[in-house]
Formats: sequence, structure tokens, C-alpha cells
Amino acid sequence: MNTETNLNLAGAFVDAAYIRQGGESMRTREKQLTSLLAQRKLPAQGWDDLSIQLLLMELAQMDSNNFAHNAGAGEREARVASALVANRCFHLAHGVGRSGDICAVQPKAAGSSLMVQLTNVLVKDILHLAGIQNAKCAIVLPVATGMALTLSLLTLQAKARAAGHTSKRYVLWPRIDQKSCFKSMVTAGLEPVVIENKLEGDELRTDLEALEAAIERLGVENILCVMSTTSCFAPRGFDRVEDIAQLCLQHDIGHVINNAYGVQSSKCTHLVNQAFRVGRVDACIQSTDKNFLVPVGGSIICGPNAAFVQEIGKMYPGRASNAPLLDLFITMLHLGREGYKSLLDERKALVPYFKEQLSLAADACGERLLHTPHNDISFCITLANVIKEKQADAATFLGSMLFSRRVSGTRVVSTTDAKTIAGHAFQGFGAHANAYTGPYLTAACAIGMTKEEIDLFVQRLRKALVEFAAQ
Amino acid sequence: MNTETNLNLAGAFVDAAYIRQGGESMRTREKQLTSLLAQRKLPAQGWDDLSIQLLLMELAQMDSNNFAHNAGAGEREARVASALVANRCFHLAHGVGRSGDICAVQPKAAGSSLMVQLTNVLVKDILHLAGIQNAKCAIVLPVATGMALTLSLLTLQAKARAAGHTSKRYVLWPRIDQKSCFKSMVTAGLEPVVIENKLEGDELRTDLEALEAAIERLGVENILCVMSTTSCFAPRGFDRVEDIAQLCLQHDIGHVINNAYGVQSSKCTHLVNQAFRVGRVDACIQSTDKNFLVPVGGSIICGPNAAFVQEIGKMYPGRASNAPLLDLFITMLHLGREGYKSLLDERKALVPYFKEQLSLAADACGERLLHTPHNDISFCITLANVIKEKQADAATFLGSMLFSRRVSGTRVVSTTDAKTIAGHAFQGFGAHANAYTGPYLTAACAIGMTKEEIDLFVQRLRKALVEFAAQ
Amino acid sequence: MNTETNLNLAGAFVDAAYIRQGGESMRTREKQLTSLLAQRKLPAQGWDDLSIQLLLMELAQMDSNNFAHNAGAGEREARVASALVANRCFHLAHGVGRSGDICAVQPKAAGSSLMVQLTNVLVKDILHLAGIQNAKCAIVLPVATGMALTLSLLTLQAKARAAGHTSKRYVLWPRIDQKSCFKSMVTAGLEPVVIENKLEGDELRTDLEALEAAIERLGVENILCVMSTTSCFAPRGFDRVEDIAQLCLQHDIGHVINNAYGVQSSKCTHLVNQAFRVGRVDACIQSTDKNFLVPVGGSIICGPNAAFVQEIGKMYPGRASNAPLLDLFITMLHLGREGYKSLLDERKALVPYFKEQLSLAADACGERLLHTPHNDISFCITLANVIKEKQADAATFLGSMLFSRRVSGTRVVSTTDAKTIAGHAFQGFGAHANAYTGPYLTAACAIGMTKEEIDLFVQRLRKALVEFAAQ
Amino acid sequence: MNTETNLNLAGAFVDAAYIRQGGESMRTREKQLTSLLAQRKLPAQGWDDLSIQLLLMELAQMDSNNFAHNAGAGEREARVASALVANRCFHLAHGVGRSGDICAVQPKAAGSSLMVQLTNVLVKDILHLAGIQNAKCAIVLPVATGMALTLSLLTLQAKARAAGHTSKRYVLWPRIDQKSCFKSMVTAGLEPVVIENKLEGDELRTDLEALEAAIERLGVENILCVMSTTSCFAPRGFDRVEDIAQLCLQHDIGHVINNAYGVQSSKCTHLVNQAFRVGRVDACIQSTDKNFLVPVGGSIICGPNAAFVQEIGKMYPGRASNAPLLDLFITMLHLGREGYKSLLDERKALVPYFKEQLSLAADACGERLLHTPHNDISFCITLANVIKEKQADAATFLGSMLFSRRVSGTRVVSTTDAKTIAGHAFQGFGAHANAYTGPYLTAACAIGMTKEEIDLFVQRLRKALVEFAAQ
Repeated sequence: MNTETNLNLAGAFVDAAYIRQGGESMRTREKQLTSLLAQRKLPAQGWDDLSIQLLLMELAQMDSNNFAHNAGAGEREARVASALVANRCFHLAHGVGRSGDICAVQPKAAGSSLMVQLTNVLVKDILHLAGIQNAKCAIVLPVATGMALTLSLLTLQAKARAAGHTSKRYVLWPRIDQKSCFKSMVTAGLEPVVIENKLEGDELRTDLEALEAAIERLGVENILCVMSTTSCFAPRGFDRVEDIAQLCLQHDIGHVINNAYGVQSSKCTHLVNQAFRVGRVDACIQSTDKNFLVPVGGSIICGPNAAFVQEIGKMYPGRASNAPLLDLFITMLHLGREGYKSLLDERKALVPYFKEQLSLAADACGERLLHTPHNDISFCITLANVIKEKQADAATFLGSMLFSRRVSGTRVVSTTDAKTIAGHAFQGFGAHANAYTGPYLTAACAIGMTKEEIDLFVQRLRKALVEFAAQ
Repeated sequence: MNTETNLNLAGAFVDAAYIRQGGESMRTREKQLTSLLAQRKLPAQGWDDLSIQLLLMELAQMDSNNFAHNAGAGEREARVASALVANRCFHLAHGVGRSGDICAVQPKAAGSSLMVQLTNVLVKDILHLAGIQNAKCAIVLPVATGMALTLSLLTLQAKARAAGHTSKRYVLWPRIDQKSCFKSMVTAGLEPVVIENKLEGDELRTDLEALEAAIERLGVENILCVMSTTSCFAPRGFDRVEDIAQLCLQHDIGHVINNAYGVQSSKCTHLVNQAFRVGRVDACIQSTDKNFLVPVGGSIICGPNAAFVQEIGKMYPGRASNAPLLDLFITMLHLGREGYKSLLDERKALVPYFKEQLSLAADACGERLLHTPHNDISFCITLANVIKEKQADAATFLGSMLFSRRVSGTRVVSTTDAKTIAGHAFQGFGAHANAYTGPYLTAACAIGMTKEEIDLFVQRLRKALVEFAAQ
Repeated sequence: MNTETNLNLAGAFVDAAYIRQGGESMRTREKQLTSLLAQRKLPAQGWDDLSIQLLLMELAQMDSNNFAHNAGAGEREARVASALVANRCFHLAHGVGRSGDICAVQPKAAGSSLMVQLTNVLVKDILHLAGIQNAKCAIVLPVATGMALTLSLLTLQAKARAAGHTSKRYVLWPRIDQKSCFKSMVTAGLEPVVIENKLEGDELRTDLEALEAAIERLGVENILCVMSTTSCFAPRGFDRVEDIAQLCLQHDIGHVINNAYGVQSSKCTHLVNQAFRVGRVDACIQSTDKNFLVPVGGSIICGPNAAFVQEIGKMYPGRASNAPLLDLFITMLHLGREGYKSLLDERKALVPYFKEQLSLAADACGERLLHTPHNDISFCITLANVIKEKQADAATFLGSMLFSRRVSGTRVVSTTDAKTIAGHAFQGFGAHANAYTGPYLTAACAIGMTKEEIDLFVQRLRKALVEFAAQ
Repeated sequence: MNTETNLNLAGAFVDAAYIRQGGESMRTREKQLTSLLAQRKLPAQGWDDLSIQLLLMELAQMDSNNFAHNAGAGEREARVASALVANRCFHLAHGVGRSGDICAVQPKAAGSSLMVQLTNVLVKDILHLAGIQNAKCAIVLPVATGMALTLSLLTLQAKARAAGHTSKRYVLWPRIDQKSCFKSMVTAGLEPVVIENKLEGDELRTDLEALEAAIERLGVENILCVMSTTSCFAPRGFDRVEDIAQLCLQHDIGHVINNAYGVQSSKCTHLVNQAFRVGRVDACIQSTDKNFLVPVGGSIICGPNAAFVQEIGKMYPGRASNAPLLDLFITMLHLGREGYKSLLDERKALVPYFKEQLSLAADACGERLLHTPHNDISFCITLANVIKEKQADAATFLGSMLFSRRVSGTRVVSTTDAKTIAGHAFQGFGAHANAYTGPYLTAACAIGMTKEEIDLFVQRLRKALVEFAAQ
């Protein structure tokens, strides 16, 4: 519409003055876009849905499958049979990446490619906003955290091999009882070395001495890297990531940080940012869905060294779905800097209230809030009285009782479960320790939560605990 | 996107050559639009959904409620609370028209206004394509046929009064048993004068002598107009519209044609086109849904005299919903000239098959197809044997039996129903005659139908007739 | 999905316990609907979009055009060519009403019909919530306020004629300078009798003496009704509607209230409610878009007498677009009782702030806020200094200057414009009076506005006034 | 809606008979679903969009994030900030899989999980329909072909290691010049061994002797598997997959088939099906977008041995995006068995025409169609005259010339390009051979193509070749 010719012709239908005013509005939006392209930063304020839809459709028409009058014969791709599917992907059907590089530009899909590039620069900006100013590069992968960890490990290994270090096969891993972290190492064909955590008060923390001892014992020539963790379920605290980064620098071994849902917490981002500065970090991985309120399926890899991050992108064989990037792109434009900042601020402000309410609920049935100062996302209350004997069944039963009361965000941990994953036996699985002091319940104060939700949640939790205890 | 500045900036993200190619694609679409604006005709080929969505969103941003950074305070309108609603109207929330004229341009809604104007010029083109080349002007009203008839009558009356003819209150109406036609006159505060039809063979046709006699009897000074009908349920044939038009010219009385679903039939459009040429027609009204495969709710008024058609638009008090226009605008772009032409051709080609199949179904139970050469949309078969006695109940029962077998398009007429509408008593209501020869069933061969549908329909119809007869 | 059979079969794919939980969720939604159907009231809390979409699609499948395996041959309607159109109407293509009654149920469209009936009961509830508890019946018409007024007048007239009162042709109309109100009478073929307003301080109010004198002068046998107005642009205050209602009762003449955007103001709804109680009101008309944040195109007719309101529905000839009802239905479910209550409360709370800010802006350039205590939606500031001489041009110029600065909600009134509408000459058109005291600017504090918008608006207004004065 | 209670309540608004009819329609759809759940096969006819949308939304309400009145506090996921995003994923935000298994059911997302399971059974059925009746299991991975190959290789390796075979690191690979195939091996940390093809006439075919020699040379204890290819660009023919399968069986080495876009060709599916029967195949991978007209991003893994295919699913660390599955699920329901069968039949029927037209275009400028009988998707014409000297530049230039004329589906191959991928140097890259006989152009006759597209394509191709030759 917005060409001189078309606006002039439109002036024959509708008074030229009104058309001019309409043309002004188009130009304002074009300037919004100019700003985005030139500054490579989140817009201060979020865009309205119309602006977002317009941009997506403008991008779509830059892809060859949408070229009017294209002679698509010979093409094997981007034909879409269902109108429901075409509409839900805004006609952007080419996916992301090329065989050589998941971040590479596709000649046949200029619009899709531009969306990818913009998403990556905006993501860098949003990480800076959240506190990781030392991130020099960030890319979004259309795989969730577990697979992104696998790809990071495979890239580290390929690099080591290319440098002649063919024996590097161990990943030192301060224990975190989350299955896909463990599997990310196994899937990469590597050997995880579990470093048990130390109990400090109620809290489980990195055992640096044990880590150093393992390095000593296994030999740096055999160690690919350490995989450390920030965001995790209490009573585990975040790892001593700065110390680990320094250790890795000193011993010249790799370091991958699993910052899965840590972008929402300034404590975690501060930790990552410091680690980037003072020690060695090759890659830091975070989930898109858990930090940015999008559907499951994407992750962000960032690091202090742009080259290595890009190598991970190059490791990805072939193209991939654009869905996780598209969801994130839309959401970042929708929120803008102010919108995301508000979400971060609101979460932070709710934490004390959440802890207080949990604590009161615990007190009411003779339990208490665990003291876990190095975790400001997840919180626990003991269940020592509620679950009198340490029975796995009781924990499971309480868990499903809560779920059936539509309390979907808690986890009841017996601390006595045994589980074997890919041949490795874990004691006390779920509790990040072979023998934690007693059963407990965790819940997270996650981004997007509201005070009303907390109230409803605590009210139901209280009721369920009382009922359960009474049985 | 499509500014030099933005394309250049995009070239820093994606190779300039690919961006240029994408830019070309945008320009192709802009030229499609240029063509539309300059030629004011349906595109030869239909547009793809992406092109249509893009145009609608470009128009939306020309409306003040979508101006980025608008200071909307003080406004009482076009705020939309629900995202579902905003999306379903493509952010075009201002409706159509101004207090002065339903076709007028709204200063605050240049985009919506342009959509209206374009719809009106495209509709004129599509009417020409369908055979009404003598239509000098066409406007779409966001009201269905009945109300459009009322507005046409009110405009005729206002014009007559303005010319000092204050006693014109009769509308001569060759009987057509469709309630909203009759009500359209009553609602306008006018007095319908029913002209009974003449039976010619199986068919009911305009009784021109009776019409002339009525003019004589009532006096032209008291007669506002004749309301004639083209498309109708057989066994009524279309009216002798040319003759009526000549009669109206001769006696200087108004003439409104109800061409409700006649655009789909070249016989009806030829009739209308001739009437425009040889006699007097003030306005010809057609439904949007029945001719153009859109949801119910709009109508098109056309005529040989642009000024009078526009006066009807000016008669409409205030603004109105844009939905019927928007649906039609999208559909016309979607179909294009070729698409609509194909629909017309396919319908025409199916008519002989439809008649043959109906005829065979009739023969199978001792009935026959009525001979109604002046109706090529609706067809009837007798039910003399099937419904042995002329019972209203039997007709109703057969009708609901068909509906419950998912045959939704038939109408069973007893020919013996009596009905009073707005104080006027009709004998044999539904059959367009006080006493038609016997009960029958009608069905229409309407635009959009397929051969498969006919086969399924006839198969179920046959089965139902046999079962019914057996009861 | 939600049948025993399907849930059981699903249990072979996904653990039966999870399926059961999912089934519970379905049942919760079904109960929401049960509640809606049984109580016929707005839900306390708004529904989420998924619930609304599900209900609409469930309704759609009850319409015959969506029957799986329907033999649609013979049908002339509800075939939809464009997927964009089908989706935007949620596959509800049958429109509303039947030839006999715009509120009537369509046999072929049970789902669409149910939507209409639910909309009407919810609308009654929302009017009660807003303060018109004496409304005994409410119907939504798919026409905007102007046409709804016309239809109300035509119905009154038809009723009068049926009772033998054939000379009733005058509508007494306390002047309100809004074109479509005036046209609504003319379009109905009636003769408006303008009752000039009385200046009381800054405010223009109903001249009851003049009204009574007109009744006397014209004779009740010739007067169809009074058309009074609540919501209007200041400096006109709302009419003395209670007094008018009593007058109409006493003289046995009709009374139609134009409450266009008055639902948002408890003052207006109180007025209407009282008038229903103490005097005669036949119908009260309000806009859907101006009160309920939906696109332009619908209106609500309510009254103290259900029978008359239903007669208006029966007056409508034929079917019509469902769009205005569908938009309103979605929006009412989306908002719920609490949501709408909040909107009302927020508007009310903003009024003092809006007035204060306008007043400060006026003071800054030597003007003042007009004192109009009987209007709590629209407010004025004088422009005596800004527009030194009473020039129409100056007013127009200031108006367009504001619009080009994206201040779209103001109206600058010269008070000296002359305008002829349908043959009737108005002096000082726009100012509701032949000679108001001086030029002024109005702006409305409308539902949906925010404090931020007011701030932006006043800031731009101030700047524009200063610039304009300086020229 | 469809409960006795609700239908009865609805009967108070709309005649019970119509409601009953609507209820019937609901039941018909429920039975469609019953059929799907019970038979686990594609519906014979495709579903309409309304049925698909309804099912998706019913599934969505079974996910905990959509539970009405859920106390979501504590949850870290499936909150969606943007309405555009929520709508485009039909409110299904949980992704697919669990940490343990990408095909596993999620307790919190019964609806999403059911969608995944249904997709997998329907995909097995569609593969059977296409000719791979020996596929015992099929799963859809939300990664494209390259990554699916990597995951298959990693799983094979893990299995080998678990069985004590720790030295298996070679993948024997009959050369196919497609970058992501090669990278799929490198990314898995394995060592590709390139087996050059044999020229037979114009065609490049598997060199079985060279393959056997390599097995001999490297030792089976060091060989993980062979990766063979069906669909490929001519003049490479599909591999001798049956022979390879027998060889692998005989030597007890793994075998992965890359059947990227081979589902559309009955020759390829026959080949795969035979190989499953007569020899060893561990996994066969195909793209979703290239075979099923969905956006890029998914792949299907099938095999003769369900256990191994499921192990690949278990290898995937963590959850993933549901987008590729959702697109495929919608598309399979949309097409139905008949729809997909038609697409297959139409493609097959177009092949002779496509070849003929290409051949005529070649003849016209002194070139010829290459004879490649073992490839019925991709076809080549020589460019010996058009590109006189074997210049890489000329090929590139012709390629971009075609693209700029909107012929996006061809590939011009110089046959003299050298390229190094992950440290491995390829001569003649793009031509599947170190030194093919001369430059050529390829184009594919892909599923979804129409005769009109072929005509437009050949017309432009002819014009471009003539112009190019003339330069």
C-alpha cells in the first residue's frame, strides 16, 4: 500500500488528506522497524499485535514459496497443504538454517532468515537486560535445554579432537537430579562423573574439593568439561559457578553452564555474568519457555566468546523448525523492554511473599520452610510430620492428591527413591543427594506468577496437607 | 519493511541479493494493488491468502484506532476489548459509513473507508461479469435483502414526497410467497397490493393484465412502485420484468426488482439488464450470501441510475457493521474473475444433470418433474402420489424426515396452508397461489454445488420418498 | 472427545489417570456452560479465550452447513468460499433471525440461534448490572444506533396505525446536533419537530415548557412520540428524561430514548431506569461499540415492556449479519461481570482527573472548563481567546491540527456553522443551539480510557493550543 | 455443550428438535474421533477445518495449563505471554516428550500427549499406505532429517558400547553430495568413510565392490554402520539399498537409510520395504516437510524393529517443540487417506510429462535429458553447450539468473567445485562424483506440483537458457 503510486490512487477513493494521515501511520510503523533493524535492541515498549502480524507477513512475502507468480516447479519444499497450518506459521514455512549452520541465511527464504537474525540479536539484548552483560553472542536453537547441552558437548568434543585431544571423554557434573541434564551427556556419548553435593545447613551446595579431587584423579587430558548448574530445585542451591569457572580456566578444561530457568532471577544472571568475566565458560544454556513465557521447545546459548557459540550453531546438521524462534520473536516484540522488565520485577517482588506464605502453611502443620539462601526461585517445606515414615508411596500419594486438586506446580520428594539412568544408579533420586535429611515439598516462584495465584495455591496446599495428615 | 532504508538495514543481516529478491516480491504485490486501485476491477486471478491478509492489515493501520502513538483519549469508539474480536475483524473496527451516508468516507478511518469504496467498485465489476452490464452503480449495504428492499422503498417514498407526491402509498406486488419480501413493504409503512399469478402449464407467471388493472384501479398518484421478482422458488417463474419495467416507465411509477439470488443465473441477470435498458428500474437488490458464498448479512443495490442508488446509501441513518462488506471484499479478491466465472459456469453446467436426477427420482415413485422453463435455479417434483391426500401435516412430516436424514435443502409444499402476515391473509401460502394443482417438493441448484452433492442428495431423497410412501 | 468411549480409548494411548484429569477439565468447562444456560447471567469472571473458542465451535457444529455428511444440495446458503472468512466467523455463517423476526430461531442453525438467544439474555443482565434494573427485555440488533431508532419509530407508527391512529407523524425532538439522530426520523418517513434547548449557566438543557407547548400546538393525535437523549456532547446536558417520560404518559404519546453511549455512565442509566419506572418509555436504544468495546455495528434495544421490544424485532424484514452479536457475545464472556464492572468503575474514577487536567490545560491559555453538571461523559473548554474571532475556518483548522498530532478524540465547535439536513436548516450546528456563547472544544472520558492516555492527550492538547494561539 | 444437561437447557432457548439435530451433528464428530482412536488409521476422507480445530481445542483443555481454575503457582512452564502465540499453537504449550523419552506421555499434558501418540500411529499408517508395509513402528521427531540421522547414529553407537563394542567409529557412506548428511555423522563424533559412486551410463550408482572392500579394509569391529540413501538429486540414482541391507546383515553391521523425500515415490518406498524384509536396517529416516507438505522441521523414523526405533526416542534428552508434530497431525487429518493417495497418484502421473517437457527444453538448445532410470523424483539436462567451458562462475550465474526469474526449484551443477566439509575435501562437490562428465541442471518433480506449474517452469527455463546461451 505504502507507495506514492498507491497512496495517490487511493486518494481518488478517499480524501487525500485522510489517506495522507493513514500513510503517516504506516511510516511510523516503518520507523519502528528501522529502529529495530538499526539498533538491534528490544523496543522500549512492546508492539501491538497488528504491528507484529504485519511484520511477519511482510517477512513471509520475502520467502520464495510466497513469491507471487513463482514457478515453484522443481521445488521440494515449503508447499503447505493445510490452510490451518499455513496460517499458524504466518506463511513462514522454510524453517531455519541451512545444512551448514542453523543460524545461516537461506537464499530462498530472505524473510525467514531475517526473522532468525533479528531473534538472535534481540535475544542478546534481552540477556543483557536480565543481567548477563558479558554475553558476547547469543543464538536461539530450536531444541530444548537438554538437546542444547548435548550439542554444546558435541561441539566441545569436536573442537578438542580437532586439536588432537582425542581422549577427553569425562564430564564432571555436580549432581543435580534432573534426568535430561544427565541424559544430555550420555546422548553425546560422553561419560558423566557425578560430584556429590555438600550439605550446608538445609542446603546442598557444590563440593569444590571433591571437584578438584576428581580432576586430579581422572587427569585433565581425559576431562572434556564441567557441567555446572544455576537454576535448580531447592534444597539444592545454585552451584559455585564462579569458583568452577576459575578452576576450569586454571586447569584448561571446558565449562558448560546449565542456566535452564535462571534468566528470570538476577541472582543467577549475576552469577553467570561474573563467571564469564573471571573464569572459563564455553557456553551457557537457557530455556526459552521457562524464562520467556513461550511454548516448550527452544533454548538460548550464549557465552563470553562469540566464536564458540557460533560453532555450536554450525554443529547442527541441517535445517530445523522455526517454531521456537518465531514464538520468541513474537513474544519479545510483544513485551518490549518495559514488559519484560516488569515481569522480572514482579517476580522478584513476589518472592518474599511466596516464602512467607509457604512458611505459614508449613507452620500450620508443624513443618518449616527450609533455609536455602542460594536459591531464590525454588523453595521447600519439610514434610517430616506429614509423612511420618519415609515412605515413597506416601510422597507419591500426596503428589497426586495435590495434582487432583489442581495444584500442578509442586513436587513431593521422598528422598529415598532409587533410580538407574543409562546404567548409572542414583540413591535418593530427586533430592540431589544420596540421603537428604527428610521428605519435603518444593514449589517455584516463577516468572509470570501473580499474587492471586499464590493465594489460591497456598490455600489449596494447606487444605491438602491437613487432609493428608488426617488420613 | 519495503523502504530503501529498511531493506538496506536488512542487508546487514541477510545477503543484500536475497533481500533484493524479497523486495521484488513486495513490489509485485504492490503492483497487484496498484492494478486494483487503478482499474477498479476484479483481479483476473484470485489473490492468495497472504496477499489478502497483508492488504487488510495495511488498511487497518490507516485507521486512527490503530495509529501507533495515538492519543486516543476523548474517543468514544473503536476500542476493542477482546483479542479474539480484534483479530477476527482484522483490526478494522470503525464499521462503515458516516451519519450522512453509509457509503461515505470516515475521516478517522481511511483504511476502512478505502475498503468500502473498493468493495463497491469491485461489486459493480462482478455484476457486469455476471451479465448486468447496464448497472451504472452498485453499493453494498450491511443489511440483508429484506431490509435493503425496505430502504429502497423508503428512499423512493422520500423522493416522491420531496416532489410533492404525498399520497403514494401502494406497492404493487406480483405474489411471491416469501415472508421478508412482504414484510419489507409493511415495515416501510407502505401498503402492499398483491397481484395473483397466472398458471401457465405447471408454471406460475406474472399476470400483466391484473397488474395494469390494479394501476388503473388505484391510480398512479397513489402508487409508489411495483416490486418485481426474478429468482424464486419454482413452480413460480421469474416475473415478466421487462414488461413491468416498460409499464412503469409508461405510467411513471417506481420499480424495484428483487433479484435476491439471481446473480448466479445468466437468465436472471439478462432479464435485469434488459429491464434497465428498455424500461424503468429504480433499484435492483441482490443478496451477497446467496450469490457470493459469504455468510448471511449483506446485499447489493444496483441500478441504471447512479444518483438514485447513492440516495439509498444516503438514506441509511448512521454507521453500520463492516462485516458483510469485509466478507465480500475478501471473497472477491480470493476468487478473482476466473474463480467467480468458474463458479457460474459450473452451476450452469450442473443444471441439466440436477433436473435429470430429480426427474429420475420422481419417476421412481410415480411422480414427475414440473415443467417450469422460466426458472433455472429452483425445480420441483410433484408429490401427488406420495402425499395422497392434501394434508399439511404430511408435507411437514416429509420435510422434517428429509431434514433428519441431513437433506437440508428441500422444501415440501402442501399448497393448502393459510397464513396471515401483518394483517394480510394468504391462501395456499408457500405455493405463490391460492390453489396450486397439488403438493410438490422444490430444491435449488445453487452456486457452489458439486456433482457429488447432487448424487448424495438424490440418493437420500429417493430413499426418503420410498420410505415415506410405504408408511 | 468427552464421551466415555473416547476417553476410554484415549486411555490406551495415555495413562488413564491423566486422561481422567483431562476429562475433569472438560467437565469444568461444561459446567461453566451449564451455569450460563441455567442462570442466564454473565459469568462472574470472564472466560479464557480457549473456553470461548470451544463454545463457538461447538455451536458451529450445530448449524446445518457444518453437519458432517450433510447433503447440502438444494441449499442456497451458508456455503463459504474463503477460508479466511470461514475462520473469522468461527464457521457460523447463517446470520441471525428469520424472515418473521430478527430474534427468531433458525431451524437450520441451532447453534447460531442459541448464540443469539444467549446474547440477548446476557445483554439484559449487563444492562441490569449497569443500572437499568427496570429493563424487562433487551435485544441486540445488528444495526447501529441510528437505524435502531428508525426501526423503533417505524414499529411505533405501525402500532399506532393498527390502532387506527393514522395521522401520527410528528416526532418531538429536544435538539441534539448529531446527524444520524435527525436522519433516523426522516428515514422513517416522519416529521421531526425541533425543540430548542434552554441555556442554564454554561449548559444546554431540555426546555420542558417548549415541549409542552409543542404538544399543545400540534395535537396529540398527530404526535407519534418524543425522542429524548441521555448521552451527548457537552455543553448539552442529558435531557430531563424523567419529566419527559411523565409528560408522555400523561398525554399518551410514545417515547423513545436515545441512550447511545450512556450505559457507561451510572448517571445516564439511573435516569433511564427512573424514566422506565415513573413514566412512559417505549424503547431505549444504546450502541454496542460505544459501551462495550466492540467494533461498530450493533445496538441494544431495551424497555420496561417486553412485548414492545419484541415487536421491534419482529418489524425487521428478513435475516441479518451475526457479526455485531457475535462480537458482543465474545466480549461479554471475555469480560465477565467483574471485568465489565471494573471498566465502569475505572471510567467513573477517571472523570475527576480528566476534568482537572482539561481545566488546567484551559487555564494555561486563558480559557476555562465549562460548568456542565448534567453531563459526566463529555466535557468542554472555552476557546474564546484561542479563536479570537468566531471563524468557522479557525475551528476547522484547529481540529485538523489536533488530528494531525494524533489527538483523534476532540471536536472543535465554532457555534456559528449553518447546516441543512434533509431540508431542515440548523443554525449553529454542532453546538445544539442557534447561538451558543462562544467557540469551545469537547472531549469525552469514555469507557476503556486509561490515565496514561489522558496524560498524553492533555500534553498534546496543551502544546497544540499554545502553538495555535501563537499563529 | 454435548451433555444431556446442557442440551436440555439449550432446549429452553431454541426448539428442542433443532437442538437434537445439532446434538446429532456433535455425535457424528465424536464418532469420527472414536474411529480414529479405535482404528489408529488415517480417516478415509479428510476432516474439515472445523473438526480439526475442535479436536485440537478439546485436547488443549486436557493440558494442565488450560485447566480452568488451576492453581498454577509453583509451575515453571506453559505460561504464554502473547495471545498471538497462544492461538497459533492452539493453546497446546507443553511441547512433546519427557526428559526420559521424546515419545513419552506428560502427566501434566494429557491432551498434548494424546496428540503425539495419535500422530505416531497415523504416521505408521501413512507410511504403510505409501508402500512401507514392513515398518513396524514409526515416530515423529521434532528435528529435521540431518539431526534425526545424528540421533540414530548416536543410538546405534550407545547400543554398540553397551554391548562392549567400543571401537566402532566408522560410518560407510556411498557418496551423496548433501551437506547435512555428511554433517550428521561428524556431529555424532563419528568418522565418515566416503564410498565413491560408479558411473553407469549417465547415472551414478552404489559401488558395492568398493563398499565390501572398505568393510574388509577397516574391519567390522570398527564399523558402526552403513548410511545409504534413496531419494537424491540425479544423476545419482538411489542406492542399491537391498544389497546393502543384505551385506549389513551378513557382516552384522548397522544400517541407516536416508529416505529424506522418498515417501512420495513408490520406487523408493518399495526399495525400503524390501530392504526391511531381506536384510538389516536399523532405522529409516524421512523428512516431514518434503513428503507431507508441512513447514520444515520434522522427520519420521521407522524401521522393521520397533524396539530400536523407540530407543532413538529414548535417546533424545528432554522435551521438545510440538510444532512439527502438530503441523503433521493437522495435515494428515486434513488430507485423509484419499487426499494423500491423490497427491501420490498425481505426482506419479506427472513424472512422464515433466521428463518430456524438460527433454524438449533441452533439445531446443542442443542439450539432452540425462538417462537416470533409478531416480524418478529428480531429473537432469546437460548444459554442455550452454556452459561452453566448465566454469564454476557460469553455473552460479545461470543459477541466479533462473532464481531472479522466479524459477526457484533448479540447481545448476558445474561438477568442478571443490569443497571442504568438517576437514574432508570433496572434488566436484554437488555432483556426487569427483569428475562427472559435464555441467548439468537438475529439477525435481515433487509432491504437490501441478501441470500448470510445470508449464510455467519450462517456459521460463527455456527462455533463460536461450538468453544465457546468447550472452
